[in-house]
Amino acid sequence: MRTLVSDARGAVSLASEREGAFKIQRPSSGGDLLQGSSGDYGSFPVARRVNSSHAVMMDDSMEEGNLAAYQDRPRTFPTMRSKTYTPLIFRIFMGINVRVLFVLLLFCFGAVFYVGASTSPIILFVFAICIISFLFSIYLAKWVLMKDEGPPEMVQISDAIRDGAEGFLRTQYGTISKMACILAVAILCIYFFRSTTPQQETSGLGRSTSAYVTVAAFLLGALCSGVAGYVGMWVSVRANVRVSSAARRSAREALQIAVRAGGLSSIVVVGMAVIGVAILYATFYVCLGVDSPGSMKVTELPLLLVGYGFGASFVALFAQLGGGIYTKAADVGADLVGKVEQGIPEDDPRNPAVIADLVGDNVGDCAARGADLFESIAAEVISAMILGGTMAKRCKIEDPSGFILFPLVVHSFDLVVSSVGILSIRSTRDASVKTPMEDPMAILQKGYSLTIVLAVITFAASTRWLLYTEQAPSAWLNFALCGLVGIITAYVFVWITKYYTDYKHEPVRMLALSSSTGHGTNIIAGVSLGLESTALPVLVISVSIISAFWLGHTSGLVDESGAPTGGLFGTAVATMGMLSTAAYVLTMDMFGPIADNAGGIVEMSQQPESVREITDVLDAVGNTTKATTKGFAIGSAALASFLLFSAYMDEVASFAHTPFKQVDIAIPEVFVGGLLGSMLIFLFSAWACSAVGRTAQEVVNEVRRQFIERPGIMDYQEKPDYARCVAIVASASLREMIKPGALAIISPIVVGFLFRLLGQYTGHPLLGAKVVAAMLMFATVSGILMALFLNTAGGAWDNAKKFIETGALGGKGSDAHKAAITGDTVGDPFKDTAGPSIHVLIKMLATITLVMAPVFL
Amino acid sequence: MRTLVSDARGAVSLASEREGAFKIQRPSSGGDLLQGSSGDYGSFPVARRVNSSHAVMMDDSMEEGNLAAYQDRPRTFPTMRSKTYTPLIFRIFMGINVRVLFVLLLFCFGAVFYVGASTSPIILFVFAICIISFLFSIYLAKWVLMKDEGPPEMVQISDAIRDGAEGFLRTQYGTISKMACILAVAILCIYFFRSTTPQQETSGLGRSTSAYVTVAAFLLGALCSGVAGYVGMWVSVRANVRVSSAARRSAREALQIAVRAGGLSSIVVVGMAVIGVAILYATFYVCLGVDSPGSMKVTELPLLLVGYGFGASFVALFAQLGGGIYTKAADVGADLVGKVEQGIPEDDPRNPAVIADLVGDNVGDCAARGADLFESIAAEVISAMILGGTMAKRCKIEDPSGFILFPLVVHSFDLVVSSVGILSIRSTRDASVKTPMEDPMAILQKGYSLTIVLAVITFAASTRWLLYTEQAPSAWLNFALCGLVGIITAYVFVWITKYYTDYKHEPVRMLALSSSTGHGTNIIAGVSLGLESTALPVLVISVSIISAFWLGHTSGLVDESGAPTGGLFGTAVATMGMLSTAAYVLTMDMFGPIADNAGGIVEMSQQPESVREITDVLDAVGNTTKATTKGFAIGSAALASFLLFSAYMDEVASFAHTPFKQVDIAIPEVFVGGLLGSMLIFLFSAWACSAVGRTAQEVVNEVRRQFIERPGIMDYQEKPDYARCVAIVASASLREMIKPGALAIISPIVVGFLFRLLGQYTGHPLLGAKVVAAMLMFATVSGILMALFLNTAGGAWDNAKKFIETGALGGKGSDAHKAAITGDTVGDPFKDTAGPSIHVLIKMLATITLVMAPVFL
Repeated sequence: MRTLVSDARGAVSLASEREGAFKIQRPSSGGDLLQGSSGDYGSFPVARRVNSSHAVMMDDSMEEGNLAAYQDRPRTFPTMRSKTYTPLIFRIFMGINVRVLFVLLLFCFGAVFYVGASTSPIILFVFAICIISFLFSIYLAKWVLMKDEGPPEMVQISDAIRDGAEGFLRTQYGTISKMACILAVAILCIYFFRSTTPQQETSGLGRSTSAYVTVAAFLLGALCSGVAGYVGMWVSVRANVRVSSAARRSAREALQIAVRAGGLSSIVVVGMAVIGVAILYATFYVCLGVDSPGSMKVTELPLLLVGYGFGASFVALFAQLGGGIYTKAADVGADLVGKVEQGIPEDDPRNPAVIADLVGDNVGDCAARGADLFESIAAEVISAMILGGTMAKRCKIEDPSGFILFPLVVHSFDLVVSSVGILSIRSTRDASVKTPMEDPMAILQKGYSLTIVLAVITFAASTRWLLYTEQAPSAWLNFALCGLVGIITAYVFVWITKYYTDYKHEPVRMLALSSSTGHGTNIIAGVSLGLESTALPVLVISVSIISAFWLGHTSGLVDESGAPTGGLFGTAVATMGMLSTAAYVLTMDMFGPIADNAGGIVEMSQQPESVREITDVLDAVGNTTKATTKGFAIGSAALASFLLFSAYMDEVASFAHTPFKQVDIAIPEVFVGGLLGSMLIFLFSAWACSAVGRTAQEVVNEVRRQFIERPGIMDYQEKPDYARCVAIVASASLREMIKPGALAIISPIVVGFLFRLLGQYTGHPLLGAKVVAAMLMFATVSGILMALFLNTAGGAWDNAKKFIETGALGGKGSDAHKAAITGDTVGDPFKDTAGPSIHVLIKMLATITLVMAPVFL
Repeated sequence: MRTLVSDARGAVSLASEREGAFKIQRPSSGGDLLQGSSGDYGSFPVARRVNSSHAVMMDDSMEEGNLAAYQDRPRTFPTMRSKTYTPLIFRIFMGINVRVLFVLLLFCFGAVFYVGASTSPIILFVFAICIISFLFSIYLAKWVLMKDEGPPEMVQISDAIRDGAEGFLRTQYGTISKMACILAVAILCIYFFRSTTPQQETSGLGRSTSAYVTVAAFLLGALCSGVAGYVGMWVSVRANVRVSSAARRSAREALQIAVRAGGLSSIVVVGMAVIGVAILYATFYVCLGVDSPGSMKVTELPLLLVGYGFGASFVALFAQLGGGIYTKAADVGADLVGKVEQGIPEDDPRNPAVIADLVGDNVGDCAARGADLFESIAAEVISAMILGGTMAKRCKIEDPSGFILFPLVVHSFDLVVSSVGILSIRSTRDASVKTPMEDPMAILQKGYSLTIVLAVITFAASTRWLLYTEQAPSAWLNFALCGLVGIITAYVFVWITKYYTDYKHEPVRMLALSSSTGHGTNIIAGVSLGLESTALPVLVISVSIISAFWLGHTSGLVDESGAPTGGLFGTAVATMGMLSTAAYVLTMDMFGPIADNAGGIVEMSQQPESVREITDVLDAVGNTTKATTKGFAIGSAALASFLLFSAYMDEVASFAHTPFKQVDIAIPEVFVGGLLGSMLIFLFSAWACSAVGRTAQEVVNEVRRQFIERPGIMDYQEKPDYARCVAIVASASLREMIKPGALAIISPIVVGFLFRLLGQYTGHPLLGAKVVAAMLMFATVSGILMALFLNTAGGAWDNAKKFIETGALGGKGSDAHKAAITGDTVGDPFKDTAGPSIHVLIKMLATITLVMAPVFL
């Protein structure tokens, strides 16, 4: 284990390695500018603190002064553990003899396969693919970890980031797991006192069974979601330093490491979502004796899985909120003092909040996005399974398992095609030869194209395999077209997001231009750009919902009375189509924060210009992929929430023993439910943004304090107290994530319960359920729009700033640049805290209403 | 007629009058600060243009230099007419002999009263009250115009403002009337080709009759709305200078003039809305032979009035958009260069955009708000009449006219009680004695309390008079309680708005605090404050909708089958209760821009400090009343839109000959309609804000250009070219208002028509109407939330800046103040362009769907 004790030998070697770096040049203008070694950053005016004589002195004595500073520096992070933290469960496993472990593992596999085989061959296929993918991810992990970690100063920084991230996740997950346990008890109580259908009672699924089943699914979902987030962070804190180190050798190698590390976590995330649902399904199938006479039908089984989806979204919501607040509070705080007031570059080691910012990338972007996509896939798979089951039942299809298990197969193929896509990004033969740098975006795009082509083929094959029925021989073709609609929607969404957030296009350029007339016009233009950007995606979603519905509707599948029934399932298939390359998209997304972190490590360890150039390019590409993934995520959330809404209506009908097919907004109470649903989104966004604002203010005050109390920081003579910023941000974001999270969970339950009482009092049956349905629907619509607004505005502000930094409109340090930085700061909580949290919120609302339905009846 | 030729005698006299003003003091800090005569403004750092030696020179030679500048100054506004513009119709009237005119007028009155008498005594009562109110408003007009206009330099400025405002309104109304004519032709065509119910055909209301009736109502509504806006502007451009002049004598007198001028326009606006509907109703009643055998029933008559509401909202939408863009583009542009870059105070005569800003107050706040409230009342009266008619029909009430005409009576009483409220604000006996200044807010509040008490009494009396039926003897009491719910809702709304926008309370203080950490945190905090502020109003609206509905539901009014039917009418009565003090509220609102303008004139004509103090206090009060009126407006819009939605469903049912009672959002197309409706609000807000942003950028560039090309402006040596800024803003806002306005009008028609076709193709009857209903409902909900967000955020930013200007957090000129100005700039288009436009948009959507219903079927 490496420690952070300053090591004279290491420091000497690193000082000699850093030739050329860290040199303070005499300002050519003769004014009071402090120019860093990177010419790009040099034009920032440095405020009153550094006078020119000081800069001249440093020019002569820097090499020694810096060495001394390294030797004298106080131990970093004295309050934090420098050892990698290993969760208890891993430590227990590590303690067991390898052979025993191997036998245990084999036994587990055997049990799982036995259960799978008793259920359906399709489940066996899914198990097999998932396990192969896990093996592949172990290969990727070994490959990434084999890479060198670079010189000690990089390792030192990386260790600090790792400690911060692991420490935060530990506390955060502790809090979340406590809340999850309380909620589990609440669910148990609710289910024990709910009413059951006579059908359920006779099929042996009484109150207690369904209570235990739901709670078990909830806890498993929560656990898996937590692990998914943890894996994302685990990989990213290890990959970042290896990418930095590789960037010293070759851009291509750095890219490959970042992609493979991202691929590793995304395959684990997607694989776990799939195998989790599959194991639950198979276990329930076997334990409850499904399809045996007198027992429940297989078409009703998916309804038991909703707990899994709720558990996943519960953890994802808090992970995204906590992580999002963490990362953006640190970022905004660091930028406001560092960039705006002091004029030092981003990720400059003199900024006391810089380590907190880098930690934030890992806990906010990697861990939270992992949990987010895990819950997206879980929710979408389960709702599609429910709809498939309902449709199969109505159409009296003989073997409904194909329709029910179709989503699992689609995502199994997703694992395969995405793995191929990831592997297609290869290093050049001889990594030591520096080839001219290719555009990393083009390389990633090539991999994406390959993945999409493969996905279309495998998707069509799966529809033919599983959705072919003799009742409607051409139905599979219609559903394959639905899948194509989904894939095209995903593609168009990515394109629209790029149009509104990339500075190659008109909107961001206009935004940059509006910065030249001041902070105010920049913000007005950004807000209107964000609001405007909601239009095209909504039109696309509208077209794809309607066309997929009609493709399904006309598939030839009819119920007993001859009415077409495939419409909703068509929408479900389109959603699956959209998510059929999820693993690759998640890889591109995870790539972003790893590259960002690598860039930070390079900057902080003061590597030569050439290395920074490489990580800067990777970072820029990462920003683009991050923005486009958000478009993808909200598009799939929009489609998935419509499915979940339908599933909710099915579930209420089954609980209430009456048909529940309409949500009539002409009823005042239902209208009020809608009003409250939309309001929930506004209030949630408000609390998410203000949490970032408040925490950022704390960071700003702390950083200002450090600059005043330790004037030597600006001259590299004193080391900033990074750990204090980390501690402030960590505790604040844990505190701040509770309020919006609790709002999201409690309000639908309270509204449903109150209107249920009102309905009972006024003789209006099912009023609670209807009001909650309207609430869910209005919240979904407002949520889609709000998330699109927040994500796009944030992304556009970020890139407008980057556009100005390329030298446009006066370039760095101009008034336009300052206005653009303000915009970027405002956009940070929009695009990385509130926006992504709303993605999760939409789906969490849908799953919570599914699980809590008994409360509203 | 006064001309703007510089008058040496006038200039001399004004120079001698302005003792103490206009003195440039030597900066005490010895730095480069230019301190104006007002100590408040002195601490702004003036950017590089004025050096201290210059300031010292000016200190000694100012009196003469300034006089010379006045004498040498070029003629202002050479391109603009200095004569008051009188519309053609007025000029024709003025040309007629007074006696002939009097006879004509008497004849008109006679005809109106004859028609009224043939309809119902209630109509006669309404006519009488309206005519008395108009006489009262003539008295108020005479009283205001009798006041002196002050010294020539005030008159000069006031004339410039008047010319700018009249010129803009002329062009704007020209554009709007052209569009209205095109739309009228379109409506005519649509109605000629629509289907009619057999019932309508037999009752003699064939295609052509209903086409002419609708178009006539539309054109009358548009005309009245235009006149309402014009009157608002006409009064305000005349009152402003009289308020300025009175401020030189006494605060109380200034307040009284501003209140009476505001009262004058609000009584004309409300009176016209009421008498317009009443005349239309009576004319249709007589002409169509309503209630005679074989003819249409009186309960169906209100449906013919919807054209009036649509005409009113059509004009109001464009008036609000054009005026809103005008006022805020000028304001933002003036502030960004004047306050932020040059550090000169608001309304400083050196700012080239200052006249444009003052013109904007009149065309944006006075004219547009007049049209806005006119259409609010018209839409609300008509929808309540439709619901009253429907209910009376269902309950088979013998004389339904009481239920139908109830809204007109409520608003007639509104005119009476508000007049009493306005008159209660009196000057002290001897205006020449300067009494210690009272808090104007307290005076206005006292008048409001009096009005509310009277309104409660008259409201209860009207319910007893008109809503008493023998079928349900206690129903009137329930409806009186509904009215009370509405009045309480209005009060609570005003309170909530104050809580979130007044700096006496926590939220704005926190916002001000967040300014101390920079522009970015200020914007984040403001956005989250605005988003959060939607929660309480939504809860209040929810409670009042449900409680009013249940009060109506349990009123004892039942239909043939014994089902309670009064619910929706209960909500309607609550809305009327909310609007039962509309005229007084509008008075307080109109007071704001008049006081603002008066302050501007005082500032520009460089009156002594004591005069400025008075207008500053009035201006501050005006800001508060403006903000609270917005809360009131959105609350009533929320309630009214629910009524209009119900009216729409009634109308569709009557056109389609089938019951239309449900809008089921579980149907994908209907869900898509909702999605599109919410998106419409986002896109509309985007375009409204970006129009302001773009126009403001033009202003910024022009003002910067003038400061560079005429460096003498800053030293009062050169006169800025005000007219150019006025021309730029006017042409830009006329251009920019078209896009969002067209979007609002075209999109519901297009969506309804497309889905009607889709419905026909897929065999789904009434699909177009259902989708439009969902679109309307989702747009309403999103609109309420978006408007609350925009209004509150804007108001809070404005007051956070004002709070800092009181000396908190470093006071004027501090970094916190600069950040707060950025927030204020962002808030301007939010609170005065996009927000109020959404109020109108919500109701316009409801009326357009009512009028265009035949297209969707």
